[in-house]
Amino acid sequence: MLDPKRTVAELKQLRDLTANENGAQRVAWTETWLKAREWFAGKLTGLPVEHHSDAAGNNWVTLRGESVKALLIGGHLDSVPNGGWLDGALDVMAGLEILRRFAEEFNGRPPVTIRVVDWADEEGARFGRSLLGSSAFAGTESIEADRGRQDKNGIRLENALRRCGIEINHFPEARKEQANAAAYIELHIEQGPVLESLGLPLGVVLGTKGVERHAVTFHGQEAHSGSTPMNARHDALAAAAKLALYIRDIAGKHPDAVCTMGSVKTFPGIVTAVVGRCETTLDQRDLDAAVLARMYAEAREASERFAREEKCTVEWSRIWNIEPVPFHPDLVEMCEKAISATAGKSYRLPSGPLHDAAEVARAGIPSVMMFVQSLRGISHNKIEDTEEQHLEMAVSALDRLATDAVEWILRSNGNDR
Amino acid sequence: MLDPKRTVAELKQLRDLTANENGAQRVAWTETWLKAREWFAGKLTGLPVEHHSDAAGNNWVTLRGESVKALLIGGHLDSVPNGGWLDGALDVMAGLEILRRFAEEFNGRPPVTIRVVDWADEEGARFGRSLLGSSAFAGTESIEADRGRQDKNGIRLENALRRCGIEINHFPEARKEQANAAAYIELHIEQGPVLESLGLPLGVVLGTKGVERHAVTFHGQEAHSGSTPMNARHDALAAAAKLALYIRDIAGKHPDAVCTMGSVKTFPGIVTAVVGRCETTLDQRDLDAAVLARMYAEAREASERFAREEKCTVEWSRIWNIEPVPFHPDLVEMCEKAISATAGKSYRLPSGPLHDAAEVARAGIPSVMMFVQSLRGISHNKIEDTEEQHLEMAVSALDRLATDAVEWILRSNGNDR
Repeated sequence: MLDPKRTVAELKQLRDLTANENGAQRVAWTETWLKAREWFAGKLTGLPVEHHSDAAGNNWVTLRGESVKALLIGGHLDSVPNGGWLDGALDVMAGLEILRRFAEEFNGRPPVTIRVVDWADEEGARFGRSLLGSSAFAGTESIEADRGRQDKNGIRLENALRRCGIEINHFPEARKEQANAAAYIELHIEQGPVLESLGLPLGVVLGTKGVERHAVTFHGQEAHSGSTPMNARHDALAAAAKLALYIRDIAGKHPDAVCTMGSVKTFPGIVTAVVGRCETTLDQRDLDAAVLARMYAEAREASERFAREEKCTVEWSRIWNIEPVPFHPDLVEMCEKAISATAGKSYRLPSGPLHDAAEVARAGIPSVMMFVQSLRGISHNKIEDTEEQHLEMAVSALDRLATDAVEWILRSNGNDR
Repeated sequence: MLDPKRTVAELKQLRDLTANENGAQRVAWTETWLKAREWFAGKLTGLPVEHHSDAAGNNWVTLRGESVKALLIGGHLDSVPNGGWLDGALDVMAGLEILRRFAEEFNGRPPVTIRVVDWADEEGARFGRSLLGSSAFAGTESIEADRGRQDKNGIRLENALRRCGIEINHFPEARKEQANAAAYIELHIEQGPVLESLGLPLGVVLGTKGVERHAVTFHGQEAHSGSTPMNARHDALAAAAKLALYIRDIAGKHPDAVCTMGSVKTFPGIVTAVVGRCETTLDQRDLDAAVLARMYAEAREASERFAREEKCTVEWSRIWNIEPVPFHPDLVEMCEKAISATAGKSYRLPSGPLHDAAEVARAGIPSVMMFVQSLRGISHNKIEDTEEQHLEMAVSALDRLATDAVEWILRSNGNDR
């Protein structure tokens, strides 16, 4: 029988084992992370499962079913430094609880295969490369760009992985785990304030937003703050300030769009000088690729107008981008039904943060995510939290979704997706 | 006979002696600065003058006259690192040329005493304390606040001075150089674009602007750029951006006022986070104390309004301030006359940058400054420059002003100022 309270208790055990006074320290490819995985492996004792690590360090727990077709339930045990107790780990532990329930209910042989996956290095906290393991699974890995990445102590990514028994050159072999994967479900804390503001415990995620991430630098003319009349200035900060405010208008035209200027650096950056150069970053996200493209074009056009107005120039350089990844409509509907049955009311929302589910969906595997309310919308921090009754509801709702997904897999057996 | 071409030639000599490929290196309390002063002392050979250093390291060259009442002509041989060839040195060398002319014309005994002063550490480039020597002269020194200042190598100000034979505890003794000082004149490059934009070589300075200098910090809420809807944000950068733009409206109400946001720092300052804290600096200047006070109040009020609008708070902390220092009306008029006679047309403008003349005026000594055009308004940089014919005109105009000032001193002899 499903025991959601056990999931909460196990999450607390994991916290006691891997957090210090500053929060969770399960950074991928560190001793504490390996300890967390060892603890997790211990939980499998007595279960009729196979357990192995793939070529990218993703850990797979497989409960073989009547059909080779598999329902995947995923999460990640790794955390950011000084992180919270739920981000990533909730998903893995909920998956384990559901796998136990299937094993018990079907006497070790459910109708389809159930697999729990603990993705390696979702956070990218140490080397700045998130979704590392799931991208290898999906075949979107970037080995040459990543192998030389260094942590703050100068240790190379490929060497850190090697110490954990992973050879980055073998990453492409992780793709074979895709075989027979028929659906993927993932539970995650929202990491935002939406569900809390609506007073709802659970929501169904429509997909992960696409991201356009750019460095936007305005070039003006450094000048003495005392001797340069206002009308003789080429103030790079003024142009940047206009953009910082205008991106809110750009995002405001679309219900779920967000635009963020997260970093501003001023040069020379002293109290007695007009800013000669202003380096900013712009992060734009939406679930609709056309909206995202329009927002990017609008920001670019506006930045050029503001630069002209302030007698400056502007330069754009793409940091990173990813297309929106919509989840599977059947699974979205099933997820909504499972939430409604468990919590009374559901809510549809896109995910702003990226998740491993996006990589899985990009590999063509029907996927969906469920969000559970985050208190104060805070994550990546030791004060990250969710009410325990909401955590329990989340495990129950994910279990309902898993049951429905298994039936859906059976129904679509033989269908070409 | 006055020889302005000699002044230009001597400035070039000084540049050859103390600049490298990056510009002038006559930073106060360094070997290069001492070399510049030694070179200057060599120029006094054969002149009927006394030469000494006061308790604060200011160097005085005194040509005794019939009257003990003295006309002071000041400047500073120290520069910023990688500075220009004119800032400070022009004033000292023009003063020397005028002193020579007085010595020659009056056979070593002019009607009043003529003193050229090379102020110590006007720039404050090494320890962050400008007007060091002239403040000691004026009695506005701040010994306890300054003695422990460190340069980037950790050397304390008081120790650097001691190596040059100056004991900071003796600074107050520099005040005695005020005795019999009847007027002070100073020539300086404008360091701004005003005269160049008007096509004028010379201008008379009405005074130095007062300055209000503050750290203004907005506190919002750090949040995930992907998961935090636009209307749920407490974006500290947005509040700061509004202030960065609004200070232009504040300054725009007054003809000579300036307001500058020179530094913006964002925290956590990463591309994926809404700015939780934004630290800015605000520098406001005007020649009118009432205008300055109003501008400060307006900025403060606006910052609080912007903080409220963005669901943030704001905190102000004064970095530094100084009241406006208007120059003496009689000397302003004489300076204008001297400029008109030399260059045809004069122009009245306030000084945004501070100068030693402000300290001298604060000591109650009638003072005025003359500005000569700066090319492109640039200073504190190796490309700082002024047309040679303008430099020569400046020396001639300052000489006329000196002649008139001497007559003015004689007229006001015995008058209480």
